[in-house]
Amino acid sequence: MAEALSENAHDLRLVDISPDYWYPIAWSRDLRAGKAIGRNFSGQPIVLVRPKRGPVYALEDRCAHRQVPLSEGVVEGGTIKCGYHGWAYSRKGDCEDIPYLGKDENQKRIPNCVRPYPCIETGGMIFIFPGDPRKAWKTPLPELAQVGNRAFKTRRFNPSVKCHYTFMHENLMDMNHQFLHRRQMGQIKARYLGGDQGDGYVEARYSFARVGSEGQPLAERLIFGKHKYDPSKPQPVEEVVTIRTSYPYQSLHIHDKDGDLIMQLFAVYVPDSGDGQSCQTFGLLSVLRPKVPLLLDLIWPVLGVFTNRIFHEDKDIVEMEQKAWNEQGGDRNIEVFPIVKKLRHLLRSGGIARQAIQEA
Amino acid sequence: MAEALSENAHDLRLVDISPDYWYPIAWSRDLRAGKAIGRNFSGQPIVLVRPKRGPVYALEDRCAHRQVPLSEGVVEGGTIKCGYHGWAYSRKGDCEDIPYLGKDENQKRIPNCVRPYPCIETGGMIFIFPGDPRKAWKTPLPELAQVGNRAFKTRRFNPSVKCHYTFMHENLMDMNHQFLHRRQMGQIKARYLGGDQGDGYVEARYSFARVGSEGQPLAERLIFGKHKYDPSKPQPVEEVVTIRTSYPYQSLHIHDKDGDLIMQLFAVYVPDSGDGQSCQTFGLLSVLRPKVPLLLDLIWPVLGVFTNRIFHEDKDIVEMEQKAWNEQGGDRNIEVFPIVKKLRHLLRSGGIARQAIQEA
Amino acid sequence: MAEALSENAHDLRLVDISPDYWYPIAWSRDLRAGKAIGRNFSGQPIVLVRPKRGPVYALEDRCAHRQVPLSEGVVEGGTIKCGYHGWAYSRKGDCEDIPYLGKDENQKRIPNCVRPYPCIETGGMIFIFPGDPRKAWKTPLPELAQVGNRAFKTRRFNPSVKCHYTFMHENLMDMNHQFLHRRQMGQIKARYLGGDQGDGYVEARYSFARVGSEGQPLAERLIFGKHKYDPSKPQPVEEVVTIRTSYPYQSLHIHDKDGDLIMQLFAVYVPDSGDGQSCQTFGLLSVLRPKVPLLLDLIWPVLGVFTNRIFHEDKDIVEMEQKAWNEQGGDRNIEVFPIVKKLRHLLRSGGIARQAIQEA
Repeated sequence: MAEALSENAHDLRLVDISPDYWYPIAWSRDLRAGKAIGRNFSGQPIVLVRPKRGPVYALEDRCAHRQVPLSEGVVEGGTIKCGYHGWAYSRKGDCEDIPYLGKDENQKRIPNCVRPYPCIETGGMIFIFPGDPRKAWKTPLPELAQVGNRAFKTRRFNPSVKCHYTFMHENLMDMNHQFLHRRQMGQIKARYLGGDQGDGYVEARYSFARVGSEGQPLAERLIFGKHKYDPSKPQPVEEVVTIRTSYPYQSLHIHDKDGDLIMQLFAVYVPDSGDGQSCQTFGLLSVLRPKVPLLLDLIWPVLGVFTNRIFHEDKDIVEMEQKAWNEQGGDRNIEVFPIVKKLRHLLRSGGIARQAIQEA
Repeated sequence: MAEALSENAHDLRLVDISPDYWYPIAWSRDLRAGKAIGRNFSGQPIVLVRPKRGPVYALEDRCAHRQVPLSEGVVEGGTIKCGYHGWAYSRKGDCEDIPYLGKDENQKRIPNCVRPYPCIETGGMIFIFPGDPRKAWKTPLPELAQVGNRAFKTRRFNPSVKCHYTFMHENLMDMNHQFLHRRQMGQIKARYLGGDQGDGYVEARYSFARVGSEGQPLAERLIFGKHKYDPSKPQPVEEVVTIRTSYPYQSLHIHDKDGDLIMQLFAVYVPDSGDGQSCQTFGLLSVLRPKVPLLLDLIWPVLGVFTNRIFHEDKDIVEMEQKAWNEQGGDRNIEVFPIVKKLRHLLRSGGIARQAIQEA
Repeated sequence: MAEALSENAHDLRLVDISPDYWYPIAWSRDLRAGKAIGRNFSGQPIVLVRPKRGPVYALEDRCAHRQVPLSEGVVEGGTIKCGYHGWAYSRKGDCEDIPYLGKDENQKRIPNCVRPYPCIETGGMIFIFPGDPRKAWKTPLPELAQVGNRAFKTRRFNPSVKCHYTFMHENLMDMNHQFLHRRQMGQIKARYLGGDQGDGYVEARYSFARVGSEGQPLAERLIFGKHKYDPSKPQPVEEVVTIRTSYPYQSLHIHDKDGDLIMQLFAVYVPDSGDGQSCQTFGLLSVLRPKVPLLLDLIWPVLGVFTNRIFHEDKDIVEMEQKAWNEQGGDRNIEVFPIVKKLRHLLRSGGIARQAIQEA
């Protein structure tokens, strides 16, 4: 491992994600009032606390006393009490009470005891800012697909994937991997229309054409617009798919022939373990409601199964990539697709090389 | 890990238990006549052999020939025969026969072939002395609660815990952790009465008072003396609980108002794995039989469930402490309770720092 | 581990098997036409491809593009297409097509893209030559017991064993380990008749005699010839068993009193993982058909159970040997049997010390 570090100082899979962004680490619905839950960001354990009154807050998930997770404790008023000996912490991370110590209040309080994280709840997700807290409130939140827009129906997805987050970005950006989904998507061929790049982003645009004689799967037809695809007149579907990594987030937009948005995806792959080899996806998939009322609601379960299958194929293949990286001790990819090369550069320059962290 | 060793030469979790004491490594009932079983002490595999005649003995659990466990073999007469090629060992660890070698007996015998351990069976337990054997017979055995005293009924317990043995000592000594058992014990508050220390021991005394209005759990009432706790007159229970670590063993005594012993616990946390991160508890819990005959026998199953639940809460929390230690790469505890600080000093000075072992 | 390497440069368990031989890595029946499967040789992933027309071929099991296993892909004509982005490879390991690149064919072809392995299919097994390919066609295949000889019936066996391949050779060569099979084989005692060694081989010969009064197990009687063993006249069975390691293969022959071959075993223990601690056995057991037609077919299932039990005892014990080696950090065997010492020398000199590999 040490060798791998020195030889591959710029190995993309040894680049940690920049902490100076807002990252979702839980869904709002998973944290009830008066409860706490434990999550991880890049190996840092974080407790999210939702008091019965007041907003959610986030602290380092360790009691200063014996280092056990505060998320195993009890929410009392605005504080979280450690479940072991009852030390109580405020939303600022001060220890406000050690129940069994003498009556001298100074003795029982320890300020700045555990680290607090800036925390915002929006779009059904709880975000933290794991980097320099002075930057938090100057840093914008990402666009969360079409959450809140009633013309769209939005689906959450949240799979855990055992790979470096960068494999996920490359997977989505390189739409030539439709071959992977041949069993789900029929014989679809992506055509690369061009790309774009700028400060902090890389973008690729594709159109999709059906090749071969097989029928179009039901769920795909339902997503990609039955109103424009006529099986009796075999012709290419001509939606434009735009994939953008706007560091550290990723989005996918599908516009129809008329340039109207019909689908939008937001995804971020949040590293959870400290080894950089697993991440939690937070995804929002917004689909334009068709004109026939309730049609989308009717097909929603089918759509769920369909996208889950596709996602599982992606999950399996990126985990194979991570496994190969581990076996080979470094990145031996031979990349030939220019837009992916640009993406790799963006991900490398946006993040922090592991070696640099270790020397600091 | 290497770093952790050098920076934390005195990290309590890198202090191995002293081998120069008697340690139980099996219950008598688990080893039938004519059989052998394998156990571990700090990563050393040990076979216990009970011949059909004569006392139990203990050897290194490896055949000198191919290093496989002797405990997989066969007890024949006073010897243990390796199950692979049939080499036979005496209780002294001499190889007395290699069945397939020629008739020259000198060729077939190898003295001092595997290491023997001093071994005593008492109180339903099989003890070994893993340290310098010359010290064994000068070293006293611990007091085994009230085993053998018919005024008490004694329960064995034997859970395996995935943590360094020192976490177990601290857990029991610091009775402020009653907060952990809030679901089992109701709102009990420990009051620290004072401590004591001397050559090879540290002791803490507590009384317990019920706070809050909740009823006292059945099993607790049965243990802590129904005769003196009157639910109609809410008042503190005033037994005195004394916890002592008398290196390397631990005991807990409960005396009632009149100073009579009503409960006694013996416990020792025997490291089994070589990494210092797991131990096997050997515990004896002696409870004074009440005056009504058979009452204790009737409540015994309830008592078992109750103490198991409490023990499981302790097991879970100390394993979280070990996990935090691993993640943090060292001991970051902020201890504020003086008697626990003294206990930590005792455990550190009584044991052997890992570094010293490795340099030796 | 590093220490173990330097101190035990010649530790037999750190000697990798020589790659310059033919090794089976799959059974023919496990690879259908138009399919591919993934196997491993000493940590090298290998894909075996059986096109609908033409012989099986073997390539490194990684797409040059993203390093995922080609064995997850699709066989199309004579090529294997990666399942991710559809890169297509020939039997020579050239990349012949990258489907989404421009029409310039030169751009889409990459010669010598993944490593091809010499590959032969014979005796129901697929062999590869993992070493220097220039040596492949000068290197003979081993004798595969009596496969193809209709006077014999041949059984395949293929267990995976979690140990270094050398433990397997020593296990079979040292027939004094009949003690291990005391529950299956009754009280059989091997008598060493003598050994032999020469260029690339070591051989031991034994006879077997029944000791004790117990009856002979059914299956054993069926193998070792009912026609000559008369339970009413207790006398030694006098077949001669010859075990030979002819590097890197192993064989066992049983000849009856008249010198006729009645049983022959071929076995090779193919390292699969890169750590040298697991191997896949490929074994062929040929038993002479008795004169009564169909008798052997009738007892075949019993024979299977019997040999499986014996093999499982061997598997368990050699895995204990590997475990002891890991715990002790090296080979501490005390070997006293001369023919096994010679075998160890053969295995050491035939293979490649790990250190040498790492320095290269």
